[in-house]
Amino acid sequence: MKIGIDMMGGDFAPLEAVKGIQQYLAGGGAAHLVLTGNEDLVRPLLEKHGIPASAYTLVHAPQVIDMHEHPTRALKEKQQSSIAIGFHLLATGKTDAFLSAGNTGAMLVGSLYALRPLEGVLRPTISTIIPKENGSTGLLLDVGLNSDCKPEQLNQFARMGSVYARTILGIEKPRVALLNIGEEEGKGNLLAQATYPLLKANEHIHFIGNVEGRDVLLDKADVMVCDGFTGNIILKLAESLYEITRQKHIDHEYFERFNFENYGGTPVLGISHPVVIGHGISRGTAFHNMITLAQKMIYTGVMQQMSMG
Amino acid sequence: MKIGIDMMGGDFAPLEAVKGIQQYLAGGGAAHLVLTGNEDLVRPLLEKHGIPASAYTLVHAPQVIDMHEHPTRALKEKQQSSIAIGFHLLATGKTDAFLSAGNTGAMLVGSLYALRPLEGVLRPTISTIIPKENGSTGLLLDVGLNSDCKPEQLNQFARMGSVYARTILGIEKPRVALLNIGEEEGKGNLLAQATYPLLKANEHIHFIGNVEGRDVLLDKADVMVCDGFTGNIILKLAESLYEITRQKHIDHEYFERFNFENYGGTPVLGISHPVVIGHGISRGTAFHNMITLAQKMIYTGVMQQMSMG
Repeated sequence: MKIGIDMMGGDFAPLEAVKGIQQYLAGGGAAHLVLTGNEDLVRPLLEKHGIPASAYTLVHAPQVIDMHEHPTRALKEKQQSSIAIGFHLLATGKTDAFLSAGNTGAMLVGSLYALRPLEGVLRPTISTIIPKENGSTGLLLDVGLNSDCKPEQLNQFARMGSVYARTILGIEKPRVALLNIGEEEGKGNLLAQATYPLLKANEHIHFIGNVEGRDVLLDKADVMVCDGFTGNIILKLAESLYEITRQKHIDHEYFERFNFENYGGTPVLGISHPVVIGHGISRGTAFHNMITLAQKMIYTGVMQQMSMG
Repeated sequence: MKIGIDMMGGDFAPLEAVKGIQQYLAGGGAAHLVLTGNEDLVRPLLEKHGIPASAYTLVHAPQVIDMHEHPTRALKEKQQSSIAIGFHLLATGKTDAFLSAGNTGAMLVGSLYALRPLEGVLRPTISTIIPKENGSTGLLLDVGLNSDCKPEQLNQFARMGSVYARTILGIEKPRVALLNIGEEEGKGNLLAQATYPLLKANEHIHFIGNVEGRDVLLDKADVMVCDGFTGNIILKLAESLYEITRQKHIDHEYFERFNFENYGGTPVLGISHPVVIGHGISRGTAFHNMITLAQKMIYTGVMQQMSMG
């Protein structure tokens, strides 16, 4: 099993990526790590942190895609960047997964175009973990990859989210809900109204109906489906909530669970290989969690289970 | 100045409505109150709480619209309900404002059909107060009246919200933003992309660009505009946050500000007369704040300023 890691992505690269690798290996992680990045910067750090040479292969990538570069253009123009090379290795079977805390847009563009969607998948999607007030976790998707959605897409997100919740989050029979304004069938905007009957008829999911904004943080549903516009706003609101409680020194276990570093990153669902996108501010722990997630995604074969063929 | 009050609306009616009136009068409130409700229930309570007969007129309404009744049907069939009579009094100039903590849908239907939109207003809207982390407050709209919106509607919401923020919230030059996913012009879903240039060209507002989900609770904008689907989900999420922090005994001044009872109710913007809709769980303080808000809306003439004519 080979996991590709972009060593140049994120605000604290490559140091925090190296720390994450250190944590991963210390925890008994056994996947071979294929690292892309500037050799002159990365190798001394790996050695300094005692990463054994047998644990990794370092592939030199002389270019870096900046956090604020235009994704499509950057990927096209910087073929020797750590992200472009990382995707190339994944697409050609040299690695089994790829993760990065770098330019999110470039990671999404790479996922969509360097790889390919699974058979029958209309649009890949990204999700986020939502910490529920009772200690459990839910999955919300889409959170920004698809800002305008069709009902058929939401129906597929429900199925992909359900597979992910079962296989990766370990929820045996995930309760799938449509995020909506109003509880009854027939409520909501045109998209929600048209999506409801599709979800109801979907044999691959356990659909429980609508949930509202007030249910997002409660243990009502395990998988919540919405368009990427709505989902992204909820995701960023939740992230800011964590920041605010920290600034105000509101220390409580519940808000600590809004620390997205705990979850390590966002997988792209519905594509041929596992790709995990980390937050720009990822530290060692986040990298460690991203590697662990990628590993689990590989050995469970979760992506292949999402094929609609 | 005459303020109409539905005495039968809300989970704790009519007792908490009476308490709210008591608080209002104790605070020196001088508007004449026109109360609609079941005389046999309401009059003894008014007397028991020492509300002077000179302060109010009680209009008997033998019917009640339940919290879960179908709004349009209920309003049509229950012409003798406290809400239907309340709207009739308002529409015929017997009162200058109307407020209720009853069936939200019926209050909205009444606002749209018993009253009329202001000249040039495509669609009335409802808003909510968002408590910012620095102690200030922002206005978010629409929060559920218009689940599917057109760019021209969002543009009008921006103007109406701006008038409301200036006139009622006392913000001299409200910063108006488009709630979006991404900071730059051109980002977002199709609705946001088409709305941005309209807001930019709107001479009646001080448009500052996009804000993201992470900015909602920060002091970035005074007025945030979005479709009613997105807004309603944010509103209900914020409400649930207050509930969760209470349940978990996370006591902090910041979360106390998410107690929507403090804000007393939601005004319907863009119609001919002030209408304030309270939460079903409104207690005395909420009713008091609703009456005070209605009074301020009358004497500032805020609704007339929203005319697009």
